This record gives sequence, structure tokens and C-alpha cells, in this order.
Amino acid sequence: MSGGNTTGEGIDRLLGEKAQQVNGILERILASESRMDSGIREAVTYVLRAPGKRVRSALVLWSCEVVSGRANRNAEIAAAAIEMVHTYSLVHDDLPAMDDDYVRRGQPTCHKAFDEATAILTGDALLTLAFEILSKEIDTPEMGLRLVCQLAEDAGPAGMIAGQMADLRAENGVCNKGLLEYIHTNKTAKMFRCAAAMGAICGGARKDEFDSLCEYGLKIGLGFQIADDILDVSASSQQLGKTAGKDLRAAKCTYPAVAGVARSKELERELAEEAVEALEVFGERADILRQLARALLERTK
Amino acid sequence: MSGGNTTGEGIDRLLGEKAQQVNGILERILASESRMDSGIREAVTYVLRAPGKRVRSALVLWSCEVVSGRANRNAEIAAAAIEMVHTYSLVHDDLPAMDDDYVRRGQPTCHKAFDEATAILTGDALLTLAFEILSKEIDTPEMGLRLVCQLAEDAGPAGMIAGQMADLRAENGVCNKGLLEYIHTNKTAKMFRCAAAMGAICGGARKDEFDSLCEYGLKIGLGFQIADDILDVSASSQQLGKTAGKDLRAAKCTYPAVAGVARSKELERELAEEAVEALEVFGERADILRQLARALLERTK
Repeated sequence: MSGGNTTGEGIDRLLGEKAQQVNGILERILASESRMDSGIREAVTYVLRAPGKRVRSALVLWSCEVVSGRANRNAEIAAAAIEMVHTYSLVHDDLPAMDDDYVRRGQPTCHKAFDEATAILTGDALLTLAFEILSKEIDTPEMGLRLVCQLAEDAGPAGMIAGQMADLRAENGVCNKGLLEYIHTNKTAKMFRCAAAMGAICGGARKDEFDSLCEYGLKIGLGFQIADDILDVSASSQQLGKTAGKDLRAAKCTYPAVAGVARSKELERELAEEAVEALEVFGERADILRQLARALLERTK
Repeated sequence: MSGGNTTGEGIDRLLGEKAQQVNGILERILASESRMDSGIREAVTYVLRAPGKRVRSALVLWSCEVVSGRANRNAEIAAAAIEMVHTYSLVHDDLPAMDDDYVRRGQPTCHKAFDEATAILTGDALLTLAFEILSKEIDTPEMGLRLVCQLAEDAGPAGMIAGQMADLRAENGVCNKGLLEYIHTNKTAKMFRCAAAMGAICGGARKDEFDSLCEYGLKIGLGFQIADDILDVSASSQQLGKTAGKDLRAAKCTYPAVAGVARSKELERELAEEAVEALEVFGERADILRQLARALLERTK
């Protein structure tokens, strides 16, 4: 996120704190998975320790806090699970047959640091581990299974994978607003919705609270992806910690390509406002999520 | 499996019937997953419809039958889930960066019929779908979560993925009996154990019944992999429905390479007998699993 004003600085600091917390949880889980193959452990550790922003996992923790007053241990496990799934998707996305990228989170991508086969298996391992920890570490079977279901739906072939598939299909092909919305909703927004939903489940949300957080997650997810697309054309690789300008070269279907940068920024602002509106049921308790929604507008990385 | 004697023919027919049943379950699930991305659906359907032997899913159904007298609906879902996970592992294993194969189950591999990116995402989709159906379709949350846990453990980085990783590491490197056992146990035997365990869970097995079936699954899984390695050096590609002679060319760590074909066949026989012994607690009820263990010795494909 960016500095420059008090809100930006405040949320930057809070996100940093949450990232620290998430890193701690991931380290605990890595330490407890003692039977993991040593080769896979090395690669899994490498990609999980890379300095990610941890926005999705922070969203799990904050959604739980907004609902129940505090982020409990279940939310910590759910946050780790979604971070694992997000990381697996990056590892596979970066493969030569996919986006063919060699820098991620400021360090060589998994297949560059190791090799392609290791990167394929590392992604597979992270995805499997995410479901394993949800099946083992959540307090009640009902909650554990609901989290597994939410994550599988939003990360699966009617969610994130659908978006990745459509993204590939769209390269060098027709790009229009309908396709763009399909890609963004599935590839990015559903994982943000998933994060908010998992936090809500862990906090014991009522139906209306759950629905509000899902709506919020979907909106900021869409806003986040538009910001990502704008940054790809306007920021440097060093700022981003990944290769800049790639979308244009790959003729990707993005908002700046379809609607231009100015209209994209306007749309981003609208989505942030809609996200904020979705939080009405929570009153002041949801201020942190309002800050997060507005901070996404000011991202510089 | 092979013909030639009554046992072989009997189990061939029974396995064929179970394969039909599993195919029917997979079709029902594909039809019910209506929101899947169309591109992913096409590839997922392609690989799931390929004529697999369905040994692992048959083992789920038979284990449940042995325990409870019949394969119930939960076992059908578990059978479909393990078939999806097995299929995902084949799709990823066949990728150019892994085993680089172009024939599987008698048809072009996924990345040959589509492309590499689609094959990566198809494997990811199948793995995610397996957990989704377990989270949605099993009668009780307790049983659903136990099945998720069993599958995630046995297919994950301390199970199947550990074996795949070690298999890659062993190529062109040192190959000894210890490494070989590690590879076979993890890469293959744990998924057979998983199948037997999932069937046991669905049948409501007691602890001693569950343990017996796990032991049985592990033993026939090891025997199955040795048979596979022997077939790779002795059978034709047409018989196998996949490329023969690949292990030797890739300098893979296999039993025939370490111990020779004669000793490998002897070991296969010993494992089948140990598998049969593990079934004592069930008496005659487990005859079908005894037949399966012995039939594995006579596989020709």
C-alpha cells in the first residue's frame, strides 16, 4: 500500500503487523509438519517465506475480528490456509507454460530457484496442505468442513481456476468487458470473498453478517485486481517485486487495455465505495475494513 | 489384470463392474458441477473419461463392503474423490517438466490433447474438486472431515507428493533399496492405503478393522508398484496404454533395476501374501480383497 496520508500510513502499519502475525502462523505450521519430504519442505518454505503482502490472510483475521471482537485460533488456521492456496496459485502461474515469470515477491520464482518439476509439486503440496490443516486444526468438524467447502469452491474450477483458464484463453484473443469481469471476478475477487467468508465463519457470523462480508470481499477483490492492472502499466518491476509491463506484452485482457487508465481508476474508486457500503451492518466495528478498502486505491505496489 | 485362470477372470470381471460403477459416479458429479469453467470442464472430462483401471476407487468400494456389507453413497463419493486425485497426479506427472509422456490410458496425455497450461490447471482443478465433493456430499461433518484429512495426508507432501519428489531426485542419481522403499511407499502405496482407509471410514470400521485395511492397502500398493516396474521392462506400450520402457531410459530407481526381475517377482508374491494375512479379522467377508491381492501378481497391463 502507499504512504502519503494518515489513513495510508495507518493501514500500512496495521497490514505490516498482520503480515508478521501470518508469517508466525506459517512458521509454526511448517515446524509442525515434520514428516514432509525434505526436498518439498525446502521449496515450500522458500515460497512461503517470500515477503508477500498477506492481504488475503489479513482479511480473514480482520473479518473474524469485525464479527466477534477478536481473531481466534480458527481464523489463524484459515488465514494460513488461504495464504497457502494463494501462494500455490502464484507458483503455478509463474511457470513457463503459464505466465513464464522469473521474479515474484522480490525473489526468483520457484521454478527459477529450483526447477520446473519442483515448482509443479510445490504448488500441489501447498494446495493439499491447506486442506490438511483445515481438516486437523479447526475446533469443530462443522466449522472445519465449512471452511474446506468455501475454500474448495472459491479456489476451484468455478472460482480461481476458472479465472486463470479464461485469462489464458483471452491472451492474444478478443478482450471485452464481459470477459474481463469474468476473469477478474473468478481469478481474484473470489479469493478475497473467500478470505472474508472464512473470517466470518470463524467468528460465528450471522447470515446477514456473512453475506455483507462476502459482498465486501468481492468488491475489494475486483478493486484490487484493477489496481494491479494499473500498476502493471505504471509502476516499476522493483516497486512491484515482480515483472512490470507484462500484461501489455502478453496482450492480456485488462481494464487499462479495455477502458483506459482514467476510467479504470474511476471504477476502482466506485468499487471501494461499494465495498464500504456493504459493511453498514457492522457500524464502527468495521472501520478497519473501510480503511483497507480505501487504502487499496492508493497502492503503489 | 490378466486372464488365464479362474481367479484372474473373476476379478477382471468384478473390477470391470466396479470401473463401470465409478465411471457412473464421476459422470454424475461432472453433470452436477454446472458452474465449472467450460474450458476446464472440457479437459477435466477428457482425463476423467479416459479408460482407467479404477483400482483405487474399487478398493474404496470393496473396503466399505467388507466392513459394512455394502458400498454406501459415502463410499461412492470417496471413490470419486480418490480417482480425481489419482488422475490429477497422472496429469501433472505426464507434463514435459516431469515424466514428459504423451500417451496415458491409451490416449494422448492432457498436455498433448490440450496444452501445458491447461494440463497444469486441470490437475489443480481435479485436486480441488476432490476436496469439494468430500466437503459437500458426505452424510456427516465428522466423516467428511475425516475423509478430507486422510486424503490430504496420503496425497500430500508427507505422502504421494513426497514420493514423486524423491522419484525425480533419484533419476540419474544413486538408487538403493532404502530410497526405493521410500519412493514406492509414498508415491504409490499410501494412495492404496488411503483408498482402503476411506472405504473403512465410510463403512464405519472399528479401530482394528481400520488398521487391518490400512495394512492391506499399503502392502498391495507396494506390490502394485513393483508389478508396474516389471511391466515397464516387459510389456509393450500398447498393452500398457502408456509408454513402455521409460523407466530404464530415464534411469529411474525401480525394483527391476535394483534387485532384478526374478527377485522383484518374488517380492511381489510376498507382499500379496502379507496383504492377505492382514485381512484375517474379516474372515470370509474379505475374500474379494484376497482375490484382488493375488490378481495383482498376474497383471499384464
